[in-house]
Amino acid sequence: LRRSTSYFILAVMCPSLSSAASYTDSSDDETSPRDKQQKNSKGSSDFCVKNIKQAEFGRREIEIAEQEMPALMALRKRAQGEKPLAGAKIVGCTHITAQTAVLMETLGALGAQCRWAACNIYSTLNEVAAALAESGFPVFAWKGESEDDFWWCIDRCVNVEGWQPNMILDDGGDLTHWIYKKYPNMFKKIKGIVEESVTGVHRLYQLSKAGKLCVPAMNVNDSVTKQKFDNLYCCRESILDGLKRTTDMMFGGKQVVVCGYGEVGKGCCAALKAMGSIVYVTEIDPICALQACMDGFRLVKLNEVIRQVDIVITCTGNKNVVTREHLDRMKNSCIVCNMGHSNTEIDVASLRTPELTWERVRSQVDHVIWPDGKRIVLLAEGRLLNLSCSTVPTFVLSITATTQALALIELYNAPEGRYKQDVYLLPKKMDEYVASLHLPTFDAHLTELTDEQAKYLGLNKNGPFKPNYYRCWLGAACSSLGGGGGGDTAAYICACVRISSKLSV
Amino acid sequence: LRRSTSYFILAVMCPSLSSAASYTDSSDDETSPRDKQQKNSKGSSDFCVKNIKQAEFGRREIEIAEQEMPALMALRKRAQGEKPLAGAKIVGCTHITAQTAVLMETLGALGAQCRWAACNIYSTLNEVAAALAESGFPVFAWKGESEDDFWWCIDRCVNVEGWQPNMILDDGGDLTHWIYKKYPNMFKKIKGIVEESVTGVHRLYQLSKAGKLCVPAMNVNDSVTKQKFDNLYCCRESILDGLKRTTDMMFGGKQVVVCGYGEVGKGCCAALKAMGSIVYVTEIDPICALQACMDGFRLVKLNEVIRQVDIVITCTGNKNVVTREHLDRMKNSCIVCNMGHSNTEIDVASLRTPELTWERVRSQVDHVIWPDGKRIVLLAEGRLLNLSCSTVPTFVLSITATTQALALIELYNAPEGRYKQDVYLLPKKMDEYVASLHLPTFDAHLTELTDEQAKYLGLNKNGPFKPNYYRCWLGAACSSLGGGGGGDTAAYICACVRISSKLSV
Amino acid sequence: LRRSTSYFILAVMCPSLSSAASYTDSSDDETSPRDKQQKNSKGSSDFCVKNIKQAEFGRREIEIAEQEMPALMALRKRAQGEKPLAGAKIVGCTHITAQTAVLMETLGALGAQCRWAACNIYSTLNEVAAALAESGFPVFAWKGESEDDFWWCIDRCVNVEGWQPNMILDDGGDLTHWIYKKYPNMFKKIKGIVEESVTGVHRLYQLSKAGKLCVPAMNVNDSVTKQKFDNLYCCRESILDGLKRTTDMMFGGKQVVVCGYGEVGKGCCAALKAMGSIVYVTEIDPICALQACMDGFRLVKLNEVIRQVDIVITCTGNKNVVTREHLDRMKNSCIVCNMGHSNTEIDVASLRTPELTWERVRSQVDHVIWPDGKRIVLLAEGRLLNLSCSTVPTFVLSITATTQALALIELYNAPEGRYKQDVYLLPKKMDEYVASLHLPTFDAHLTELTDEQAKYLGLNKNGPFKPNYYRCWLGAACSSLGGGGGGDTAAYICACVRISSKLSV
Amino acid sequence: LRRSTSYFILAVMCPSLSSAASYTDSSDDETSPRDKQQKNSKGSSDFCVKNIKQAEFGRREIEIAEQEMPALMALRKRAQGEKPLAGAKIVGCTHITAQTAVLMETLGALGAQCRWAACNIYSTLNEVAAALAESGFPVFAWKGESEDDFWWCIDRCVNVEGWQPNMILDDGGDLTHWIYKKYPNMFKKIKGIVEESVTGVHRLYQLSKAGKLCVPAMNVNDSVTKQKFDNLYCCRESILDGLKRTTDMMFGGKQVVVCGYGEVGKGCCAALKAMGSIVYVTEIDPICALQACMDGFRLVKLNEVIRQVDIVITCTGNKNVVTREHLDRMKNSCIVCNMGHSNTEIDVASLRTPELTWERVRSQVDHVIWPDGKRIVLLAEGRLLNLSCSTVPTFVLSITATTQALALIELYNAPEGRYKQDVYLLPKKMDEYVASLHLPTFDAHLTELTDEQAKYLGLNKNGPFKPNYYRCWLGAACSSLGGGGGGDTAAYICACVRISSKLSV
Repeated sequence: LRRSTSYFILAVMCPSLSSAASYTDSSDDETSPRDKQQKNSKGSSDFCVKNIKQAEFGRREIEIAEQEMPALMALRKRAQGEKPLAGAKIVGCTHITAQTAVLMETLGALGAQCRWAACNIYSTLNEVAAALAESGFPVFAWKGESEDDFWWCIDRCVNVEGWQPNMILDDGGDLTHWIYKKYPNMFKKIKGIVEESVTGVHRLYQLSKAGKLCVPAMNVNDSVTKQKFDNLYCCRESILDGLKRTTDMMFGGKQVVVCGYGEVGKGCCAALKAMGSIVYVTEIDPICALQACMDGFRLVKLNEVIRQVDIVITCTGNKNVVTREHLDRMKNSCIVCNMGHSNTEIDVASLRTPELTWERVRSQVDHVIWPDGKRIVLLAEGRLLNLSCSTVPTFVLSITATTQALALIELYNAPEGRYKQDVYLLPKKMDEYVASLHLPTFDAHLTELTDEQAKYLGLNKNGPFKPNYYRCWLGAACSSLGGGGGGDTAAYICACVRISSKLSV
Repeated sequence: LRRSTSYFILAVMCPSLSSAASYTDSSDDETSPRDKQQKNSKGSSDFCVKNIKQAEFGRREIEIAEQEMPALMALRKRAQGEKPLAGAKIVGCTHITAQTAVLMETLGALGAQCRWAACNIYSTLNEVAAALAESGFPVFAWKGESEDDFWWCIDRCVNVEGWQPNMILDDGGDLTHWIYKKYPNMFKKIKGIVEESVTGVHRLYQLSKAGKLCVPAMNVNDSVTKQKFDNLYCCRESILDGLKRTTDMMFGGKQVVVCGYGEVGKGCCAALKAMGSIVYVTEIDPICALQACMDGFRLVKLNEVIRQVDIVITCTGNKNVVTREHLDRMKNSCIVCNMGHSNTEIDVASLRTPELTWERVRSQVDHVIWPDGKRIVLLAEGRLLNLSCSTVPTFVLSITATTQALALIELYNAPEGRYKQDVYLLPKKMDEYVASLHLPTFDAHLTELTDEQAKYLGLNKNGPFKPNYYRCWLGAACSSLGGGGGGDTAAYICACVRISSKLSV
Repeated sequence: LRRSTSYFILAVMCPSLSSAASYTDSSDDETSPRDKQQKNSKGSSDFCVKNIKQAEFGRREIEIAEQEMPALMALRKRAQGEKPLAGAKIVGCTHITAQTAVLMETLGALGAQCRWAACNIYSTLNEVAAALAESGFPVFAWKGESEDDFWWCIDRCVNVEGWQPNMILDDGGDLTHWIYKKYPNMFKKIKGIVEESVTGVHRLYQLSKAGKLCVPAMNVNDSVTKQKFDNLYCCRESILDGLKRTTDMMFGGKQVVVCGYGEVGKGCCAALKAMGSIVYVTEIDPICALQACMDGFRLVKLNEVIRQVDIVITCTGNKNVVTREHLDRMKNSCIVCNMGHSNTEIDVASLRTPELTWERVRSQVDHVIWPDGKRIVLLAEGRLLNLSCSTVPTFVLSITATTQALALIELYNAPEGRYKQDVYLLPKKMDEYVASLHLPTFDAHLTELTDEQAKYLGLNKNGPFKPNYYRCWLGAACSSLGGGGGGDTAAYICACVRISSKLSV
Repeated sequence: LRRSTSYFILAVMCPSLSSAASYTDSSDDETSPRDKQQKNSKGSSDFCVKNIKQAEFGRREIEIAEQEMPALMALRKRAQGEKPLAGAKIVGCTHITAQTAVLMETLGALGAQCRWAACNIYSTLNEVAAALAESGFPVFAWKGESEDDFWWCIDRCVNVEGWQPNMILDDGGDLTHWIYKKYPNMFKKIKGIVEESVTGVHRLYQLSKAGKLCVPAMNVNDSVTKQKFDNLYCCRESILDGLKRTTDMMFGGKQVVVCGYGEVGKGCCAALKAMGSIVYVTEIDPICALQACMDGFRLVKLNEVIRQVDIVITCTGNKNVVTREHLDRMKNSCIVCNMGHSNTEIDVASLRTPELTWERVRSQVDHVIWPDGKRIVLLAEGRLLNLSCSTVPTFVLSITATTQALALIELYNAPEGRYKQDVYLLPKKMDEYVASLHLPTFDAHLTELTDEQAKYLGLNKNGPFKPNYYRCWLGAACSSLGGGGGGDTAAYICACVRISSKLSV
């Protein structure tokens, strides 16, 4: 059921993110939240969370997150005058974390009413949910929902008397799916859908292809700013973090092979090179291959180096990049992990054979032991290392949340006709706006064009500075992560060029 | 007249490229080549060069160049079986250097007949022209042509009895222009134009816009491989080379401001940071600005740092980025130079005032002296530093020449209907082929997709691995170099997306 | 009492190192090990550990560590023929971890008998101690000793009937101190002391100065190989790891000031620069300052940047480098931490005032909150970040352990007269030997001098390749870490020059 | 005769340094300066230069140099009050360049009288010599002296009626040698010798060893600041510059092997890695080898990679590191060059065999051609690349010149007994002073110790901050450059430890 591809899943696995949990778990009872009678301090009981008494702990987490989400706080400030979301009734289904709470409270400050469920049965931070409920948000989510709970929570968000949503914020497409299935008439009032995840976007494009998408949808997953941060910059740091937290290894002098030289691969290679590793690259695309050469990496076939490397990292979006045959030939103690999009890059299934022994040595770390005693160190069972074994900086989440907020504002306020029943990317100008809202974090000062210069360049002084198709600049990333631009996967990426056109590539 | 934007112009200015000249100049007489009677050793006099006796010197230069142009040599090898240019009659107008000679002789090996003129009145290497003439190429070019000579040479290439070109290879558009003006009927037999320069491409798009383009044209300037090498990789090296050759400065510890963080700016920043300079960046586009931040550069307005920096480098494509006011505030000995596309980035004209003294201290280096004794070190009078003060590695020229050769092959062999009377980019697959031909130089081994993987990714095993629009990935480059994607300049870049569509952005 | 300066202390604080603990704690009872009757499977009860039944868990940890300590394993292999420690009776007092276990079992394989106590009341890994006891090592140590327990354990190691130590391996000097105080006659049979820690070395030099050192002692703390790894290479990685594990922050674009540009500062600066941070440096020594400039860092006074930076890192060895005044001026959310030797670099005491609120947000992370709401993020209360908040790679511990083993071998086998009653550094050649034992880890192939070359250089083909004083090359490190070479601290470092001379600088 | 090891030799070979020559050569006649009657504008004829009329050109070069030698200019400013060299009569023998002129005029400003000859028969810049003569310095030097001229000029400096030197500034030891041989009594009045070159220092140590050194001598070649700049920082830039100027090659993707990982090797490796080359390292010393590993370079034997690399760079100080056998196995177009101290690192002599053809393709670039057509590109015939093919930044020369000036001041003003008849290194504090004088160039702000901190560290607030032996920190450099610290070469480097002791290692 849960194909969640979004970052928040890590909250489930990574103790550091759910640090708050520690002081609350002990007080938790076994009663299902659905069976509890809870009220917040203002007397409302329009919510369902684990324990409303944890609100104070959650509030502190939210306050800390606020400090690192300056863009949303800036939007709130601007909202003191105008309320761009006045009248908006937003139903949301996302991971429920401190960062989401900052987003929700920002939407509230911009004038919206919100109702919220969790998009993952494990990822809710109970105390954050409690804090939101306490401050008046109808939140229906807790950590450890059953599948039945999951849909019950979603239903409680949309199936309300006297309240009908006019905007959807979704992460994974389950909320959208539920409304399509149960309350199709609701779409008459809905102005648009904002979708965050690869999976959800994929579903929307399929709807569009089938002619069934009946409102405009905004794909925020593929905005330039978000993509660049999710891939190059975030991976540059998380590859180191993920390897350290799981193995405590020293990077200096280690031989590493990185499969795939898209944005993710580029980030991994740059970081490891900087830490003194010797990095080899494999590629299928001669253009990326030539870039790897010029950046100082030896381009090899995996077979050529598999016996000598200390670490194998996949970031291709492809399947079976590391096969059992490769695994058989690796040297003792070789570390194998995946930074790419797909869980199939390493053929982990091939290791589930009787002659190999699996030994779980730490959370997320397995030793797979060959009959001759050779051990391979497999991280996160081949799932995404950075989601499983490191944390995502709030700064990256801030970019995502700001993009979501702006997409909601755009769809809600767009004059009729601007968007049709199709899947759109955030207009370039708003993407630039997200970026500009994050510059003050770095005390960065943007230069303004003079009138004369703007005229010379044929640009508006306030942007957009790049044409809409500029996002294909991310092609490098999708080629490695999204499958080289082929097939259906590529189809909706193509949409970045033929914005809002039907999919007929 | 000569707006030549191509690299070879440097041959005029940079002694190291025209090294061969030294042993020939002394023997040169003052007679115009047009007035000379010369024959090559086979008795042909269908050429006009400075001195056919210099052929041997030129041959050595060509042989050296051959060693660094493996892709063309590989094409020649393949041509032993098939002659993809059999029957092609190519008229060319480019800089005439050893690298061009390798290209011409490759075209010959592929089956083509060629006639050639120079696209620049200064850039011809006389001994190379002689070597080509000696081996039977009708070449009409010498260093130091008059404007009249220039057009006479072009005319001698096309206006031949019993020979009519069916392909054009142009660099700057003058040859194309001449045929349009003088021999429009010739286009009936012409299968296509391959154009190398920004200027020439611009002219073609104007023709297309005006509905006057009567054959397909291939814009090889904007191919991914060429662009990436011309900008990021080449500039990363040439910024250091250009500064060293002109000023012998030490980079370590120097404070530098780089205006513009497109591909060129990124290359300059990376190189200087690696050499121990402290680099500041200015940008107008928040997305590029955020990238600069994440790459570790302080983003400032020029005014904030202008008093303290040791070097100012422009790479914006914009005009008046460095104004007289900035120049007035720079500290003594500050070096100012331009790596961007336009000659107008530094307002050099504003320095031509009576109170300032200009002192030429070396070739390409001027001291501009303020009344109080302050000196600014201006390089190449604000023209492109890397063209004026460094050399272009043969490897980069090899990529360009291979792209030209493949574009000629493609246009010549394309089935009727594939290309209309419009401006095209090199198909992605051929761009990838250019890249793959250069991989052996690095002993780089490309991985091949398995059948299963190709199916999974929805790709052909031999590529293309990226969709055609992938080249917009160069958006970053054009935004800095080509003017931010705005106006007419942007128009034909947009064409990379809507390939072969009319220009109506 | 416990001044422990050694790395293992982190085992106490850092959950990832003591991961094994999780599955054993629950079974632990409250009975003091001193009151338990335990026997290993061979019937011996000459040990005192928490729970001998945990031996199997500990054995697995030891086996994993063996894989990353190739140098000790190589020594074992060589020991199959010769037993360089045959007859050695070593009493040891160190942290008891898997890596120590590998060392102890190596000493055993080399022929030595060992008895061991812990040098820290918290750092013992109980299951490792159990595994050692099970395989016959008389180990007296558990996690959570009282001070009385601590000395009781040490005494049980040395006060044995029919067994008298002839070698001491100490970490902190407590074991040495105990023997001096309680059993001074024992020194008659003792051939030498090997001391690992700064504190212990300091005590030895004081003994030497006072004329009371009655056996040779080897200072392994200051060997070149160990120092270079403990400082430059290890800190390059642990600064990133320590910051990530505590704060999950993103490095890209962050402004950081690093106080001190010795080896530790160099490592921190290089790593953060590589991750895209903007780094400022403060220094007192103009030579280090000039190096910082040439390496591309702006050299500032702390006051100049204190208001703007996101992170402050001290690595000076000095005191009060970050004062309350600096802390008052930092911006909200500024992170403050210490990578240097001393705990006094940040004036943490000055933050213990009534108007400031301390809030512990995670293990090792405090928010100090000003009346206006400003929060400073203080890591590890100003103690060493890399010891408190990151792990030390086994590879670094391997270098330390190998150095200790070689020092024991050298002192035990040295012909009479080679070493007097003084403090020595490991001979250069043995330092080189430690390095060479670690090269195979990197598949690194050393070049051998030809006879002719050795003669030309005046070197023995097998080294030493550098003169003994070469270790002062670490001067840069000690200047930052050890106090700039002044005072008593410097005194014994000076000894690296005047090896084995009295301290009279 | 001329073993000159100093940088200035490049002036002979490198057109950019002797740029001024161009506008003067044409006016030069063939008359020997010794036969000319010349007077400066004040009527003095106590000099002998090529052409006094070139003084104005030389003055401009000197003025430009002054701008980049801030430390000497700062010394001049201070000299307005005190004249630390009042009464000093300095005889000098160095390269005569603009930078030397700035030094000489600074010595004059500090109170000294100077007489000067050239230490190299080719390196004198005639117009600079003229400018010095014009402003009253008795200079005896011109470009293209015969050997007889050379000694005649030196003699004219010392053999003067009514003037006897009391200080010697030498570069190579010829002046010192001449006085020893011809005017040994002169040493009675001489307070000291300052020697700049490796060769000269070697000669002084031999004198010292033989008991014949009769005055104190200061070895400024081995000062920390000078060494660090001459090696690590300068080579980091000059390896790129030297390769570019000679070959115009692209660094990206090239495979390079660097022999030797001392300071020079470290600089070369870092620079090439940063430019995208793939770098291999060879080493004989396991400690340097381990550093190479940790810095991310594969450590290999030359044989393992010799067939595949594009560039071979030697920086070992050793002989026959690259043998004919290696050269035979290199691939076509492989570039071979030397950055180390010795000219014997590449066995160039072995290439002088009949079956190989040498072809000079550019200045400093030879193609050596094998019978099968394979070409090796040999740079500078195996001599030091950075001296032959790149320029030395004035900043580096500024450090050298300042060190010389301070050494002269120290020796001249030292109280009797501080220095005996031995070879000394510049006191640490003065070395730090040289560094501090260069910090303002970088707008670098040094932190001052508080009284409390100075006390804590046991340091004087004004330094020295490192003990005198600190300079052995350069051991890494000398191991690569000076022959691994062995034999006679090492002997005088050892002196850095046992300062002013006799050589008996």
